[in-house]
Amino acid sequence: MAEISLFEALRTCRTVRRLRPDPVPDELLRKILTAATWAPSGGNRQPWRFLVVRDAERKRQLRELYLPLWRTFSQAYTAHLSGLPAEARARQERMVGSADHLAEHFHEAPVIVVVCVHIPELAITDAGLDRPSVVGGASIYPAVQNLILACRAVGLGAALTTLLCQKEPEVRALLDIPVGWATCAHLALGFPEGAGHGPVRRKPVERVAFLDRWEQPLFPVS
Amino acid sequence: MAEISLFEALRTCRTVRRLRPDPVPDELLRKILTAATWAPSGGNRQPWRFLVVRDAERKRQLRELYLPLWRTFSQAYTAHLSGLPAEARARQERMVGSADHLAEHFHEAPVIVVVCVHIPELAITDAGLDRPSVVGGASIYPAVQNLILACRAVGLGAALTTLLCQKEPEVRALLDIPVGWATCAHLALGFPEGAGHGPVRRKPVERVAFLDRWEQPLFPVS
Repeated sequence: MAEISLFEALRTCRTVRRLRPDPVPDELLRKILTAATWAPSGGNRQPWRFLVVRDAERKRQLRELYLPLWRTFSQAYTAHLSGLPAEARARQERMVGSADHLAEHFHEAPVIVVVCVHIPELAITDAGLDRPSVVGGASIYPAVQNLILACRAVGLGAALTTLLCQKEPEVRALLDIPVGWATCAHLALGFPEGAGHGPVRRKPVERVAFLDRWEQPLFPVS
Repeated sequence: MAEISLFEALRTCRTVRRLRPDPVPDELLRKILTAATWAPSGGNRQPWRFLVVRDAERKRQLRELYLPLWRTFSQAYTAHLSGLPAEARARQERMVGSADHLAEHFHEAPVIVVVCVHIPELAITDAGLDRPSVVGGASIYPAVQNLILACRAVGLGAALTTLLCQKEPEVRALLDIPVGWATCAHLALGFPEGAGHGPVRRKPVERVAFLDRWEQPLFPVS
């Protein structure tokens, strides 16, 4: 396998929502999960577990939990698209279309990885602020990103969803996840059905990088 | 510059807490911040801003906020190390020593990046669960991880802290961060003083990967 460069992997790592049912070999799972464990975490505590679901019945039950959540979410989401310019709207509608496909075929992904984090090991430094907390994610989503990037490198596609976290009690019961461990991401993995990866579409860096204070551009806006 | 492979970057990306004061060229900042923007986010909304602090006075004030937080934290942290086996304890003490160095010299890093996330654009699906929420981080820490990996690739070191999020109101005032935007990570960046990067130390993947249900090993434990 050709070794992809870091920047090439970062630049072309797309969400892949159309997956072939072909099995994912153990050696690839070992490679991508090992890459996930290389991520940083607070105090290097590595508060993660990766639950690889291959069992058809459990995948079917995850899909039964996911599909209604997605339908409710996508109805609300698409209701807001009508105000967008035509091109942006078409792009969003394509994304929703492929996410519909993912939800309907969730159980057909050869692997669903349920990423779990051990809450007592997190130092959630923004817990006392007068806003929703995000810092608990700092010790787990870097590992999720490593996992996704490693998929890119070995030719696998990955689609991340956090929507299913809403049904954590049901997922906990289904997979025997102990109390104290939270579900923070579900990843459908498999070989891409079509082209899969390719250059990502993002806002230019000039719009999101500031120097020394808010809204002072770091780079001249071209 | 030689192009590092994805897996080599992931495997050798360490926290670098001892940084040289030499300036970070704009072209490297552009490269690493662009890499950050390539990360995935919910609905591809890219709810991020990267505030690059180079101004000496503002860096000094960030250090004044950070140092007492770190001292309080490290006292509590080191108090818990006495129960560890000697080798693990020595490793932890080395980490604390280099984190002490970072805290004392925080303002001498040529660049401190304050990563901000726009709370109203997050879909925090675990907000209603009976546990601390982590999902808000899913749309920002992948970008932080991309940024850190890109530093690795271009020869920069990065030290991430979330401790300073506790002082968000003060940081908000210092950098004119508007309400609605949360600070979720502070990164000291610069060229490493010593060797910098190298292989990371992690638990074996066999211990953290399960198949189909909790504690059923995915890989035979060797």
